[in-house]
Amino acid sequence: MDRPPIITLLTDFGTRDHYVASMKGVILGINPRCALIDITHQVKPHDIEEGAFLLANACSYFPKGTIHVSVVDPGVGGPRKPVLLVTRNYFFLGPDNGLLSLAAQGDTVKQAVELTNPTFFLSRISTTFHGRDIFAPAAAHLTLGIRPGVFGPRLNSWVKLDIGTPIVTGRELVGKVIHVDAFGNLVTNIRERELLQFNRGHLVVIRAGGRSINGLKKGYRDGRKGAPMALVGSGGFLEVSVREGNARKLLKIEKGDRVKIQLKK
Amino acid sequence: MDRPPIITLLTDFGTRDHYVASMKGVILGINPRCALIDITHQVKPHDIEEGAFLLANACSYFPKGTIHVSVVDPGVGGPRKPVLLVTRNYFFLGPDNGLLSLAAQGDTVKQAVELTNPTFFLSRISTTFHGRDIFAPAAAHLTLGIRPGVFGPRLNSWVKLDIGTPIVTGRELVGKVIHVDAFGNLVTNIRERELLQFNRGHLVVIRAGGRSINGLKKGYRDGRKGAPMALVGSGGFLEVSVREGNARKLLKIEKGDRVKIQLKK
Amino acid sequence: MDRPPIITLLTDFGTRDHYVASMKGVILGINPRCALIDITHQVKPHDIEEGAFLLANACSYFPKGTIHVSVVDPGVGGPRKPVLLVTRNYFFLGPDNGLLSLAAQGDTVKQAVELTNPTFFLSRISTTFHGRDIFAPAAAHLTLGIRPGVFGPRLNSWVKLDIGTPIVTGRELVGKVIHVDAFGNLVTNIRERELLQFNRGHLVVIRAGGRSINGLKKGYRDGRKGAPMALVGSGGFLEVSVREGNARKLLKIEKGDRVKIQLKK
Repeated sequence: MDRPPIITLLTDFGTRDHYVASMKGVILGINPRCALIDITHQVKPHDIEEGAFLLANACSYFPKGTIHVSVVDPGVGGPRKPVLLVTRNYFFLGPDNGLLSLAAQGDTVKQAVELTNPTFFLSRISTTFHGRDIFAPAAAHLTLGIRPGVFGPRLNSWVKLDIGTPIVTGRELVGKVIHVDAFGNLVTNIRERELLQFNRGHLVVIRAGGRSINGLKKGYRDGRKGAPMALVGSGGFLEVSVREGNARKLLKIEKGDRVKIQLKK
Repeated sequence: MDRPPIITLLTDFGTRDHYVASMKGVILGINPRCALIDITHQVKPHDIEEGAFLLANACSYFPKGTIHVSVVDPGVGGPRKPVLLVTRNYFFLGPDNGLLSLAAQGDTVKQAVELTNPTFFLSRISTTFHGRDIFAPAAAHLTLGIRPGVFGPRLNSWVKLDIGTPIVTGRELVGKVIHVDAFGNLVTNIRERELLQFNRGHLVVIRAGGRSINGLKKGYRDGRKGAPMALVGSGGFLEVSVREGNARKLLKIEKGDRVKIQLKK
Repeated sequence: MDRPPIITLLTDFGTRDHYVASMKGVILGINPRCALIDITHQVKPHDIEEGAFLLANACSYFPKGTIHVSVVDPGVGGPRKPVLLVTRNYFFLGPDNGLLSLAAQGDTVKQAVELTNPTFFLSRISTTFHGRDIFAPAAAHLTLGIRPGVFGPRLNSWVKLDIGTPIVTGRELVGKVIHVDAFGNLVTNIRERELLQFNRGHLVVIRAGGRSINGLKKGYRDGRKGAPMALVGSGGFLEVSVREGNARKLLKIEKGDRVKIQLKK
């Protein structure tokens, strides 16, 4: 009964400015009982793919009913729609530019709504800050029990992001780096199950940044200090890491670069 | 009834150290029901003007009764007074060095109090950290219903910050950049109403960093990619921006630099 | 009665990634009433000593019963144990690598428990992220009233960190810099009481980075602008600072460098 509603926030606004606090103020003005949790505000500016990846990784750890507000929005004020995606466990609000799609698809979308009803917006809408003027107040109104359908018309489709599917050619599985974390760990788009389907118990060599890495480790601790290793990270994706080191710096690899897995002869 | 009291925090302490957490611990030790919201802790160290600008922009989005604690305090331990400004909707606590003045004046000051009553301080006051020792405990005691006048004597005046007034000379309005946000947007001290009074519907040219910008856009989306544009930002001030780019880098402009608006012939 | 349980978080995960949010989601999934407070997530990656120092400085400002979760864990997945230290006022959870020891010893350890009971872990434990999989759920279960002894077997010893004891030789007290804060203040391992025992009211000269500093100031405000000064900082340790400046840059000193105090002749 006295469980506070949870709203998470993910943006590319940074934490130096007043933008995130403005969103929080708007939410608390509508429902001061909300618990506000930052996922991150340091998505690379305008990098929808990075935002989508981080949201997809974080969202599923939150309890059923959590409202996820995400704003990486280079097209704000343009034709892209503000949307609410209702999934099996969550509510996702944000621009319809692909940002929500990895997370929402991972949880099965039940209803998609375009946010058009001005009753639930701030009274004066700027053309530059829909996070504060549309998404934050809509999220807060959801916690008051307003039904999704009241926010606007049903949408039949929404923008899906393509993070690329790893490709198998003969004895090789080719993926790419989709995220570099703050430790310099290189997270690829190769999921654990794709890896298991590919190697079927055979030994593998991972090739990245001109280096060959033998086999998979269970944890960061299993690698040699200073040498690159491969493992399935906490998000379920293949990662290249260096024990107590920085794989991005060592291998001179950036987001988008290829990582290959080859079956050992 | 069970609405938690809201306290916001704005400092130049950064988020690497334990300073902000110490303040939060002190507040929760006095009233564990407080909701604590960070505005920012990345004000440029000792930059009172930047802190004042960010506080003024963020504060008004919070609900009536919110307590705003702000600490950018190069004079800590010196003669500057610790103060509480009670305004129409809010309570502002911080050093009396101008930091609170833009925000407080924008909301009409009803009462100003010097914080002198040691009952509401930490038992041992350091000379270096009034945020933790004076402002945090005073804010927490306010949420318990202590009346402002109990904290100390009434003040008849307090320090006002001068962010400069844009100057009109003939067909020219001259302002300056008072904030550069994390996107590189250049926020000036020219308010929307000053702009409307100046141009009275005439076309304008904005001059900044040696570039001429034609007219005002409605939103970031309306500019050409890579070209500078001018618009009224979400805080109500004239901004120079670049669509999906960084105006500070493109125009080589910093805080304090001039921006001119000229009536078109 | 309706006082929310407080859980603090300190990690070296940074704030760009989804790691901290995952921990928070896990906690709120078990007890959505928890108040979550970040101490910092910007401990230098794998720097156990820095994490231990920041935790020890922040923890004591929180109310009795606060649960402190700390994760700086280069040995995750290896033989180091996950532990719970119950002290006079607090609960500390984290890896048994010294990270918790300064804080816990400062508050007197009453009970030490190895976290082994899988009932209180996430159902699938990764070998790379015990913060999310072990420490966060254990902390949340503590707030539900689970007794410490239920989490696993009692430990008779745990890893203590050695931050070095300042050494007195004749008329000289030699310590070292153990933390450089975001302002560039150089915090040493010399505690106020060690200093008072050493100088016994005599005048002192502080030598750091090839400079001589006369005596101790009361606060940052007492130094001359641009000149180095020494004072006892808000954490109770001797600090070298520069008024409205940066001591690290001025003195070209880093963490680990020596600071000497000499009795004046």
